[in-house]
Amino acid sequence: MRASKLYSPTLREVPAEAEIVSHQLLMRAGYIRKSAGGIYSYLPLALRVLKKIEAIVREEMNAEDAQEILMPITQPAEIWQASGRWDVYGDEMWRLNDRHGRPFCLGPTHEEMITTLVKMDVRSYRQLPLNLYQIQNKYRDEIRPRFGLIRGREFIMKDAYSFDKDEAGLEVNYQRMYAAYMKIFSRCGLNFRPVEADSGAIGGSGSHEFMALCETGEGGVVFCSHCSYAANDEKAELAAIVAEIEIEQGLQIVATPNVKTIEEVSGFLNLAPDKLIKSVAYFTENGPVLVLIRGDHQVNDIKLKNALGCLNLDMANERMINEDMNSVGGFLGPIGLKNVTIVADSTVMNMYNAVTGANEVDKHYINVNPKRDFKCNIVADLRLIAANDPCPRCGKPVEYARGIEVGQVFKLGTKYSHVLEAVFLDETGKSAPMVMGCYGIGISRTMAAAVEQHNDDNGIVWPVNIAPYHAVVVPISAKDVEQVALAEKIYKQLNSAGIETVLDDRNERPGVKFKDADLIGYPLKITVGAKAVNEGLLEVKERKSGEIHFISVNNYLEKIKNLLVLV
Amino acid sequence: MRASKLYSPTLREVPAEAEIVSHQLLMRAGYIRKSAGGIYSYLPLALRVLKKIEAIVREEMNAEDAQEILMPITQPAEIWQASGRWDVYGDEMWRLNDRHGRPFCLGPTHEEMITTLVKMDVRSYRQLPLNLYQIQNKYRDEIRPRFGLIRGREFIMKDAYSFDKDEAGLEVNYQRMYAAYMKIFSRCGLNFRPVEADSGAIGGSGSHEFMALCETGEGGVVFCSHCSYAANDEKAELAAIVAEIEIEQGLQIVATPNVKTIEEVSGFLNLAPDKLIKSVAYFTENGPVLVLIRGDHQVNDIKLKNALGCLNLDMANERMINEDMNSVGGFLGPIGLKNVTIVADSTVMNMYNAVTGANEVDKHYINVNPKRDFKCNIVADLRLIAANDPCPRCGKPVEYARGIEVGQVFKLGTKYSHVLEAVFLDETGKSAPMVMGCYGIGISRTMAAAVEQHNDDNGIVWPVNIAPYHAVVVPISAKDVEQVALAEKIYKQLNSAGIETVLDDRNERPGVKFKDADLIGYPLKITVGAKAVNEGLLEVKERKSGEIHFISVNNYLEKIKNLLVLV
Repeated sequence: MRASKLYSPTLREVPAEAEIVSHQLLMRAGYIRKSAGGIYSYLPLALRVLKKIEAIVREEMNAEDAQEILMPITQPAEIWQASGRWDVYGDEMWRLNDRHGRPFCLGPTHEEMITTLVKMDVRSYRQLPLNLYQIQNKYRDEIRPRFGLIRGREFIMKDAYSFDKDEAGLEVNYQRMYAAYMKIFSRCGLNFRPVEADSGAIGGSGSHEFMALCETGEGGVVFCSHCSYAANDEKAELAAIVAEIEIEQGLQIVATPNVKTIEEVSGFLNLAPDKLIKSVAYFTENGPVLVLIRGDHQVNDIKLKNALGCLNLDMANERMINEDMNSVGGFLGPIGLKNVTIVADSTVMNMYNAVTGANEVDKHYINVNPKRDFKCNIVADLRLIAANDPCPRCGKPVEYARGIEVGQVFKLGTKYSHVLEAVFLDETGKSAPMVMGCYGIGISRTMAAAVEQHNDDNGIVWPVNIAPYHAVVVPISAKDVEQVALAEKIYKQLNSAGIETVLDDRNERPGVKFKDADLIGYPLKITVGAKAVNEGLLEVKERKSGEIHFISVNNYLEKIKNLLVLV
Repeated sequence: MRASKLYSPTLREVPAEAEIVSHQLLMRAGYIRKSAGGIYSYLPLALRVLKKIEAIVREEMNAEDAQEILMPITQPAEIWQASGRWDVYGDEMWRLNDRHGRPFCLGPTHEEMITTLVKMDVRSYRQLPLNLYQIQNKYRDEIRPRFGLIRGREFIMKDAYSFDKDEAGLEVNYQRMYAAYMKIFSRCGLNFRPVEADSGAIGGSGSHEFMALCETGEGGVVFCSHCSYAANDEKAELAAIVAEIEIEQGLQIVATPNVKTIEEVSGFLNLAPDKLIKSVAYFTENGPVLVLIRGDHQVNDIKLKNALGCLNLDMANERMINEDMNSVGGFLGPIGLKNVTIVADSTVMNMYNAVTGANEVDKHYINVNPKRDFKCNIVADLRLIAANDPCPRCGKPVEYARGIEVGQVFKLGTKYSHVLEAVFLDETGKSAPMVMGCYGIGISRTMAAAVEQHNDDNGIVWPVNIAPYHAVVVPISAKDVEQVALAEKIYKQLNSAGIETVLDDRNERPGVKFKDADLIGYPLKITVGAKAVNEGLLEVKERKSGEIHFISVNNYLEKIKNLLVLV
């Protein structure tokens, strides 16, 4: 490809809304353009990267006997109504009617669709196992799309669905997909970790997320360098902390004028936060909930949702606290509270002589002893893990990192096959629902995550395997006939040798070309200047290390291939 | 691929709704499954065919300097409002709101999107010409989706858009795309014709359609074997027929009790249909319209729309005829009609002593002489061409055929760039709108058209270039160890040699395997039976000709390659 023809318009200025580096660089280097919030066009360079990621995904999926298909984006409501998720999915599901008023959605995922599809034709255990995947747009009408391709409303995913006759078969497919994902993200050049994950709204019995580690990631992961434990912070379990035994003092109410937050109470009463019980008010479809957690801990919403078995969980506002809970914001507490579900983190139940709000303005209780002073509806592990918390497996302190979820694998079991009646006849002639797994990869998100991890002040530093091109050839002077002729020759030879190369034949200053080459992120920049013409030496610069090699024009192909180590 | 693993569920029975052979065979042979009216899933074999068509399209597009991009499916209403098409597009546009109530559509086409995209970055004539394309789902909420993939609501298209600084540049890009399309459809194995077409709702100054000829096609084409003229029947122009001069008789009203249709009037008055004037009532956004055409001719709705310059054109119902036109169905005529736009085909104006309805029940006028007896608002060529009509270019009788439109190329000119302000600075520093072309190919429709053209009683007969696999190897006995081993060996050797081969390793009777092989449509079927094991001869049957070759197992690769002539 000649740069003079390549549509890769670079920008001098980054749009203000681009908060993270992948969004900024993909805009600046001419990879993507925004059409509406969270909805982007992919320009030629971006599409090449996407196709390379897709090719890697296809190779590894096919190697594990998954077969590619393509399902509709527009999905009839009936199949979602049959599974019960039409009402469960909230505003994130993009809904529409056809001209006859029949409801449809734009597929946020395809469990209902694939189950309905497979059900049409699979009748016998002899047709199983089966693993079908597709690469296609998905839709989530995010309330606040952001971070460019990381959290979009229209994005490209690979989604796979396995069907087995039993749990053992699912386990085999799950492990094959897990192994494929390890290869896929390695080949894409990502620094990632597979972590145990909650299976969330999609349901099922087991799940791993593949997290590309980076500080701008929206997800938290913990991992233990002592054992192999690694989990999404929402998933990581924590044992109750056993406090030192104290003599229970008498419950007492104290005035705490305008003292509301944990910091304020801690300062006012001169007690460490781990002596306080934080009360947090929520609302669910089943009514108000008060959550109790130690003052220095954070609530894990996923654990809380699981403990409550609810679908919707929102923070309560002051009006709800006043009217529905008969309490006051800043002075909430479990003692004397009526008609409110009280849920305590298990650590709270081991505290002695603690502090809670007294449900009155400017009043707190001290010397609260949970087992003695109030009743809980539920006691469970509700705590969000943090750095240095004990590893759930070995007890040593965990490390904490942020990451972007680029893939997830789920054991669905029979959740969908049961309600949608996707059954088969087993060896004994008995009808049973198929045992399913599902496996997603964010294709466009993987591109963004790669940029998030691989960049410097000058631009993108693509991993070779997913770079849009491997190299750019830059003649220093567009007017020097010898330079131009040599550059043309090398450009053609490289492409013939399978090294995907751009010739920067634009009538621009070398400085502009070098800047663009760095910004776009070609792994190799091959400069054809006076040194090449006079001394027969090409200047080859590695984008990643910055290292410069002078290579003879007579014998450069092998050397350049060696610099492009394809994983 | 092993047939035991391939997900290609064949059906014994064809769904009743499948009216045409491509729909029937693609369902029966396990290529597609319906999810909702006009919305299908593509199973593995279909996806392979689609990918082959796409690969051919990409190669030929890239060879003409078109660059692949990917634009959103969800398009904000604003850009359609800016072009004026938000209101023009009717119910066929699938509309939806996002969670904030902002209107979007599912792209039926991308003129607005690409123009808005290119406008962001192209400022100078030096960035032109530019030709960008994508391969992606398109959406048309058809009132009556039918014919399987031929007229769907969600379908795959390649759409390309060229941008030039002037008409001469557009002409170059248009011709390059025209030439690319000729290659693409030839390589896909279609029997097709490029024909002159009306540019329709999309606007612009010139257009060709690429029609795959077959009797089930929804479009009509005429072509002349005397000259090179070929056109969509909606586009083909017709000169007015000059009738023999007659002496004008006096206008007379006659009783025609319950005589309404052309056939009835012709029979009752004992006059040939070419002596009658057919009156057809329409409604447009500008009010009622009466169209006059000779009794043996048909109205061409596209010509009529163009003559009227209207957006919506519907047949009038009896109520409209009675109330808004003050007439009666079956007895319509131009004489005495008030407040109705009267449009006559130019041939009508040359008639003498003709017959029309009298706008009264059971009454017709005879001896109507158009120039004398009524006034027309518009006289134009409104006639739909038919077989044996004169060729618009050379006057010899044309031939008529039906076809499926698989591609269309348009000269858009500045229609979109003007309203959407996609301008550039030309060599003199003057700002001008870019000159655009657009170029579509129905990818999924091309697959269906290929099946429509290439099939027999036993199933599909794929053209080699787009066949999902090139060959199937069938061991006669799944229990014969030698046969199975030889079949395995040949299967592996063929795949290694780049011949995409399926091994039918299923535990089925040979008859079942042969039937499925024919139904699926592999170009070659290689049988490994006793003859192969004992005499060293493979039986290779060509799907298309039915010809059988016996080829030595020791030296078969080249011979098989020769049987698979790739275009």
